[in-house]
Amino acid sequence: MPLVRIDTTQRLAPERRRALGDAVHRAMVETIGVPPDDRFQVIVGHADAALNVTPGYLGIDHGSDVVLVQITLNAGRTVEQKKALYQRLAADLAATGAVRREDVIVNLVEVVKENWSFGNGDAPYAR
Amino acid sequence: MPLVRIDTTQRLAPERRRALGDAVHRAMVETIGVPPDDRFQVIVGHADAALNVTPGYLGIDHGSDVVLVQITLNAGRTVEQKKALYQRLAADLAATGAVRREDVIVNLVEVVKENWSFGNGDAPYAR
Amino acid sequence: MPLVRIDTTQRLAPERRRALGDAVHRAMVETIGVPPDDRFQVIVGHADAALNVTPGYLGIDHGSDVVLVQITLNAGRTVEQKKALYQRLAADLAATGAVRREDVIVNLVEVVKENWSFGNGDAPYAR
Repeated sequence: MPLVRIDTTQRLAPERRRALGDAVHRAMVETIGVPPDDRFQVIVGHADAALNVTPGYLGIDHGSDVVLVQITLNAGRTVEQKKALYQRLAADLAATGAVRREDVIVNLVEVVKENWSFGNGDAPYAR
Repeated sequence: MPLVRIDTTQRLAPERRRALGDAVHRAMVETIGVPPDDRFQVIVGHADAALNVTPGYLGIDHGSDVVLVQITLNAGRTVEQKKALYQRLAADLAATGAVRREDVIVNLVEVVKENWSFGNGDAPYAR
Repeated sequence: MPLVRIDTTQRLAPERRRALGDAVHRAMVETIGVPPDDRFQVIVGHADAALNVTPGYLGIDHGSDVVLVQITLNAGRTVEQKKALYQRLAADLAATGAVRREDVIVNLVEVVKENWSFGNGDAPYAR
């Protein structure tokens, strides 16, 4: 159910960007209860001019190789679950070697459960 | 008012991707009352590595040529309207010959009516 | 905190697209109280076939060089603030010479304040 958009630099090769996506998915499975088979991601590598990101905000410096992770998901996670997700994302994406912890930017967009179809026109959560 | 993002494979030629967009629009007009002239879409064809999609979820298999349709629209549609939209999207996108019914993935993001401007700085729904 | 997606034509050179992004940011700072250092934007230039936009809606004609500005931000702005933002966006983006006032399309997606992390796994607004 999450639809994940990952935007980062094209300096990362496609397979490394894909590895970031896989790490994002594992973090969601292990911190906020996303089903392991529920993976729907769009991962784009951009030229520098396309990522217009502050050099620093709230005391955290940002380089030119940020990773923006925007996750659309069902409402209902607690603040504690969300915090655990952010911690895991920063740690695990940095562990891939592709990005600094400081440059893992995350945004959640929450929707109601009837707002999804995963093929065949079904609305599996609209019960 | 809907802003529609369609992400699919670059194996589909641009004009076929555009035809998917037109089919998405007609389905919204006919099932959830979107005005026919209210069409704002961004349609992107990606390399395989950019679409990181599960091979199967909830009993539906997915191939490498999925179509992800994310629709931002005003809140207010009923669950029945949303279900009708999903059914039409699966049927009509498959009818273009570009995608299987199983590979039509849909997500709705709902907003309030004052969250739109369609040019000139107007906020036409903020009444 | 806003995550801004700007989609426009690839006929605009990357530096001109970036200038649109900078103008969007200044408008948000000056009308809805976004911190000056809080800039996170993804700006993409598309081929014509990718921007499937109505030739006209609600009495406003659209050309082939629209700018779609989708802003995800914290809930809480008033309708008057939103209207002021739209006016500034239309005026200031047109003033760059890159786009007509009529072709500045804006959509806001609102989220709760715990839905953000700006690096290091912190959740700075979740207090």
